[in-house]
Amino acid sequence: MSSTLGTLFKVSTFGESHGKAVGAIVDGCPANLELSEADIQPQLTRRRPGQSDMTTPRDEADKVIILSGVENGKTLGTPIGLMVNNKDQRPGDYGEMSTIPRPSHADFTYQMKYGNRAASGGGRSSARETIGRVAAGAIAEKWLSEQFGTKITSWVSSVGNIDARDMTLENLTREQIDSNIIRCPDEAAAAKMIELVKATRDRKDSVGGILTCVAENIPIGLGEPIFDKFEAKLAQAMLSIPAMKGFEIGSGFAGARMFGSQHNDPFVQKDGRLGTTTNHSGGIQGGITNGEPIVFRIAFKPPATIGMAQETATFGGEGAVLEAKGRHDPCVVPRAIPIIETMTALVLMDFVQRQAFRKA
Amino acid sequence: MSSTLGTLFKVSTFGESHGKAVGAIVDGCPANLELSEADIQPQLTRRRPGQSDMTTPRDEADKVIILSGVENGKTLGTPIGLMVNNKDQRPGDYGEMSTIPRPSHADFTYQMKYGNRAASGGGRSSARETIGRVAAGAIAEKWLSEQFGTKITSWVSSVGNIDARDMTLENLTREQIDSNIIRCPDEAAAAKMIELVKATRDRKDSVGGILTCVAENIPIGLGEPIFDKFEAKLAQAMLSIPAMKGFEIGSGFAGARMFGSQHNDPFVQKDGRLGTTTNHSGGIQGGITNGEPIVFRIAFKPPATIGMAQETATFGGEGAVLEAKGRHDPCVVPRAIPIIETMTALVLMDFVQRQAFRKA
Amino acid sequence: MSSTLGTLFKVSTFGESHGKAVGAIVDGCPANLELSEADIQPQLTRRRPGQSDMTTPRDEADKVIILSGVENGKTLGTPIGLMVNNKDQRPGDYGEMSTIPRPSHADFTYQMKYGNRAASGGGRSSARETIGRVAAGAIAEKWLSEQFGTKITSWVSSVGNIDARDMTLENLTREQIDSNIIRCPDEAAAAKMIELVKATRDRKDSVGGILTCVAENIPIGLGEPIFDKFEAKLAQAMLSIPAMKGFEIGSGFAGARMFGSQHNDPFVQKDGRLGTTTNHSGGIQGGITNGEPIVFRIAFKPPATIGMAQETATFGGEGAVLEAKGRHDPCVVPRAIPIIETMTALVLMDFVQRQAFRKA
Amino acid sequence: MSSTLGTLFKVSTFGESHGKAVGAIVDGCPANLELSEADIQPQLTRRRPGQSDMTTPRDEADKVIILSGVENGKTLGTPIGLMVNNKDQRPGDYGEMSTIPRPSHADFTYQMKYGNRAASGGGRSSARETIGRVAAGAIAEKWLSEQFGTKITSWVSSVGNIDARDMTLENLTREQIDSNIIRCPDEAAAAKMIELVKATRDRKDSVGGILTCVAENIPIGLGEPIFDKFEAKLAQAMLSIPAMKGFEIGSGFAGARMFGSQHNDPFVQKDGRLGTTTNHSGGIQGGITNGEPIVFRIAFKPPATIGMAQETATFGGEGAVLEAKGRHDPCVVPRAIPIIETMTALVLMDFVQRQAFRKA
Repeated sequence: MSSTLGTLFKVSTFGESHGKAVGAIVDGCPANLELSEADIQPQLTRRRPGQSDMTTPRDEADKVIILSGVENGKTLGTPIGLMVNNKDQRPGDYGEMSTIPRPSHADFTYQMKYGNRAASGGGRSSARETIGRVAAGAIAEKWLSEQFGTKITSWVSSVGNIDARDMTLENLTREQIDSNIIRCPDEAAAAKMIELVKATRDRKDSVGGILTCVAENIPIGLGEPIFDKFEAKLAQAMLSIPAMKGFEIGSGFAGARMFGSQHNDPFVQKDGRLGTTTNHSGGIQGGITNGEPIVFRIAFKPPATIGMAQETATFGGEGAVLEAKGRHDPCVVPRAIPIIETMTALVLMDFVQRQAFRKA
Repeated sequence: MSSTLGTLFKVSTFGESHGKAVGAIVDGCPANLELSEADIQPQLTRRRPGQSDMTTPRDEADKVIILSGVENGKTLGTPIGLMVNNKDQRPGDYGEMSTIPRPSHADFTYQMKYGNRAASGGGRSSARETIGRVAAGAIAEKWLSEQFGTKITSWVSSVGNIDARDMTLENLTREQIDSNIIRCPDEAAAAKMIELVKATRDRKDSVGGILTCVAENIPIGLGEPIFDKFEAKLAQAMLSIPAMKGFEIGSGFAGARMFGSQHNDPFVQKDGRLGTTTNHSGGIQGGITNGEPIVFRIAFKPPATIGMAQETATFGGEGAVLEAKGRHDPCVVPRAIPIIETMTALVLMDFVQRQAFRKA
Repeated sequence: MSSTLGTLFKVSTFGESHGKAVGAIVDGCPANLELSEADIQPQLTRRRPGQSDMTTPRDEADKVIILSGVENGKTLGTPIGLMVNNKDQRPGDYGEMSTIPRPSHADFTYQMKYGNRAASGGGRSSARETIGRVAAGAIAEKWLSEQFGTKITSWVSSVGNIDARDMTLENLTREQIDSNIIRCPDEAAAAKMIELVKATRDRKDSVGGILTCVAENIPIGLGEPIFDKFEAKLAQAMLSIPAMKGFEIGSGFAGARMFGSQHNDPFVQKDGRLGTTTNHSGGIQGGITNGEPIVFRIAFKPPATIGMAQETATFGGEGAVLEAKGRHDPCVVPRAIPIIETMTALVLMDFVQRQAFRKA
Repeated sequence: MSSTLGTLFKVSTFGESHGKAVGAIVDGCPANLELSEADIQPQLTRRRPGQSDMTTPRDEADKVIILSGVENGKTLGTPIGLMVNNKDQRPGDYGEMSTIPRPSHADFTYQMKYGNRAASGGGRSSARETIGRVAAGAIAEKWLSEQFGTKITSWVSSVGNIDARDMTLENLTREQIDSNIIRCPDEAAAAKMIELVKATRDRKDSVGGILTCVAENIPIGLGEPIFDKFEAKLAQAMLSIPAMKGFEIGSGFAGARMFGSQHNDPFVQKDGRLGTTTNHSGGIQGGITNGEPIVFRIAFKPPATIGMAQETATFGGEGAVLEAKGRHDPCVVPRAIPIIETMTALVLMDFVQRQAFRKA
């Protein structure tokens, strides 16, 4: 296990899906940031399941408690302890899975690696693990917003084969994105996506999707080549989220099909600094931010736990049919949005803290 | 700068493109591995430019010297110092670029971050920087091969819009891949790719491409959730390579368009262990290897330095036209193959060393 | 702030003296260790103040709660969340110190570094911070004891100018050491020490002391030269404890006055392995354990907070007299014993996990 | 092996005593520091053996070569590669030690840990390993001196039982200290020390000693509680030096014998900032520098390799007599001075870089 992220702004998380609590320690947060639970709760609430009939009905308040690091409404510069109690501690529903590992889930690999695993839910591999990250990232978001006006926005750009139109450079707000339950700001596409998710749910299947994320108002110079290039640490952060299968920055895979003369972003004077006229680079050149918006896309596979009957095998290798009991999320991408945004904030925050001392 | 990779098997690299030397220190290599320069040289030679008329004519022998850590042909368990002298130390050819940052290159961001940058070539952002990694990774490859029979194979699957047919599960060898200069084992596609690269070169442009990589004979249980999931650290390693824009593991972005019932990899008894009948997971479930081959794809943008005239701006913000002097690689993907393979070995090696102590 | 210790067995702590809670996350604990709160509580209880009339009367039960990482009485291999609620959350008693930094305390440096500090108690610099470490270390102690029979024992060897006789190689037990309130197993010296502490307390002063610690049944080969030599990381761990001023391993400062012919530990066959007849090395040679007991001594300064009047200055630089209100520990060394023991266990545990993979 | 030190200013070293070369990579050095070999050489030369008839006659020029990271006389912000070739690569003189591990040397523990070891000299455990650190630290010294006027001075305060008078607060220069071969600025004590070392050498024995070190002009606020307190990382750095047995900061072990009313350092207005009238704290309170000079002492054991006959055992456990061939350093403390100073600079430098971002 390695549940700590960051070099100077360090986040360490804990918690299984059906244990007592989940949470995190945020170490390295600058002192004198005004902070209360109210600053952290909104992203946790956006992440919460049970917000629509499309997601798992596990309704938990997910109220965060600050255990340390804040006094008189301001951070002390000391570790910030964060905790969210689990209300749903009952095991159950998962009896059959004790002998049949779910295909494409972590049941098998956890059992092989640790010789033990949480008996119910996904334990540490559950999406519930992300609560600690989201709470920590909400703190980073607040600091970055105050310091640089940084704004991080993510939305659903595809569900299954339904794509939203390209809206990367439009001025999207979280309110706009949250205005429909699939969190896709292209209303026409959103309607089709919702329909697809419902049909998928009805036949006890699941479906994948793609998110886009844009971070604006980014200081120039973030990123630590060569191994900690900005996009490299961002990719690590994104691929550490459950169910992620792909990451692309700027032009991404499409960029691999272009010529240099098309792909290169020409420089131009812009708001008193050197900017670029296009942004195939996604805001990063040579592993270092160039001041343009950071733009990236990530791919989520369909959730592994489905109610449909699947032919598979037991841990012992015997043929078996698995039909997962209970209700499971047919599509996780809308709930993934606050996770993506806050993880982006964690990466940004750590790089800001790591900036080398500069002579005046 | 952050030029060290790994937790227990640590690689620290140094060197600019036109300085005295490039190299690396490999710290944490197990003792008693039989090792000489001859084990490291082949991947360095595959990486070397000037192997065909498609790549930059900078012909350097790139001979590696082991400075420490090996005695009587065996590793001591101490740091292995590796060095390759630069023959091409002359500055020049780049005069114009001192005032005009190359579009989509690191000139601008390095200058902004450090307030200084190498006057010639790309300095630290040059592809020459990868020599240290390749040398270090060749050591990891040898150890993994001896210990587990691990075999890592990468090939060119696309150049521009020309795609090789899907050959992920075929038993490819490095010899086969190296049999044509574009390193694409689909001979028909290879011929078209070579033609495209030549035409691109002739009009002083550049073109991107995609590589596929497969790693076989992988121990079950590698990867350290949650932040150091196998695919997360692999993505970091890949995105740290110059010119990378995207990474996908297993089904990748295509997987985001699938249903769970299609995407899940059913378990089945296989060679005395539990395996899967399909491999959309790309050998990883829950951030941990499951024993199936690790399969991933990466996207390279077209090289930024091109001879064609580009309208852009000077550091000072004034409009300017840049035509890069000298000859530059129109397509880097063939040379990237040994980089991808050895970086994969570095990630695998570190995870093997990090495996938790297990009771007998 | 940097509140994480360890490379593979990582402990991250949180908590101020008068906030809601203190605690830790233990990441990297091997799976399948039998563990409950009852395994952790004894060292916390030994650490607790208010056990005698010599220490601060702050009586808190200090009951530890395991929040995660354990299911059905066994560790899962996932992060173990540990929390102890603070009962004593009232600020107060410290009003004067808001303008007058306590001499030799952290008031001044925290204020200067962070521009903020906990208004009451020592905040993060309080001895209460050590609760997270002790809880984490108790887990390490249990694992090491089961795996190797490791036994770690510390006792008070000096208080002020009163020294216990040298008892390093005697077979001391924790019960024996706890049989008197100063935790010095030399009964004659203990009586004088207790008298000294009482007299010191009565005149509102404080006094320092020295602890000895011995760790037995240690695997050969622990320690990672050159920067993470065993004694180097042990020294870091010890000097990170509040009020520490010195560390010596084996012969220590006395060894600097010896000749090589006296100091060298001759090898001899011993219980089927090569051992040494003397142990000036303190169980470590070249930064690596040699299988002999690890023996070290540490110096605690007198606590900085005293009731006696002290001439000093305000934050603003004006002359002032400070008399600390409330009752303060006149001598912390007895309570430091469980801290030393558990910190030693943390260092050992991390080195065991870091041992390089060895060919069979 | 773990041969990398530092969080942001990272030093990775390599090299055995009788291999091709020794050296280091310095990663994280700020850009635009004026730097050439001439800035690094003086401390390497001070460290060099063969400077007097008291030390080993191995005369090596120890000329450092900068391989990367500097262009046009200024640092680029990229890794600085440093190399010193070994002239003395012949094995020999050590034949007998292949079967008899030297008492209190690393022969036994390296062989047990790695199952292999350098056949001649000490390999990686040799004092020659320190060359990489000294070269790296000389760079840190230069930067700190330019930035803050930091001055680090160490001298020999004891050899065997001969103590120099206490001269901690005098204004010592390196020239003054180097004016005699034992590097003790108390001339009367120096004469006796030299006599003692010569007598020790003549009977083929060795002797230990103690160094004092003072670092002046230190920014307030360095150090990262709780685990990376300033004194904790300083202790790690010091104990990582070969032959170190003890470390004390400020009052050290003597402080453990004092009362709080004696030991506390009263605050007073001083040069426009809050200072202290005494410095028992050694410049650090609560793990953070307070602006007073950092003062510490370290104990070196007598070198393990001596020419006198020693009764010991072979690796196989059979009784044997060992008389080390060749000439060996009877006392290493004078040569340790540049090591101590440069290691101190490395610790300071890393903490300066780690200082948290502060709102304007």
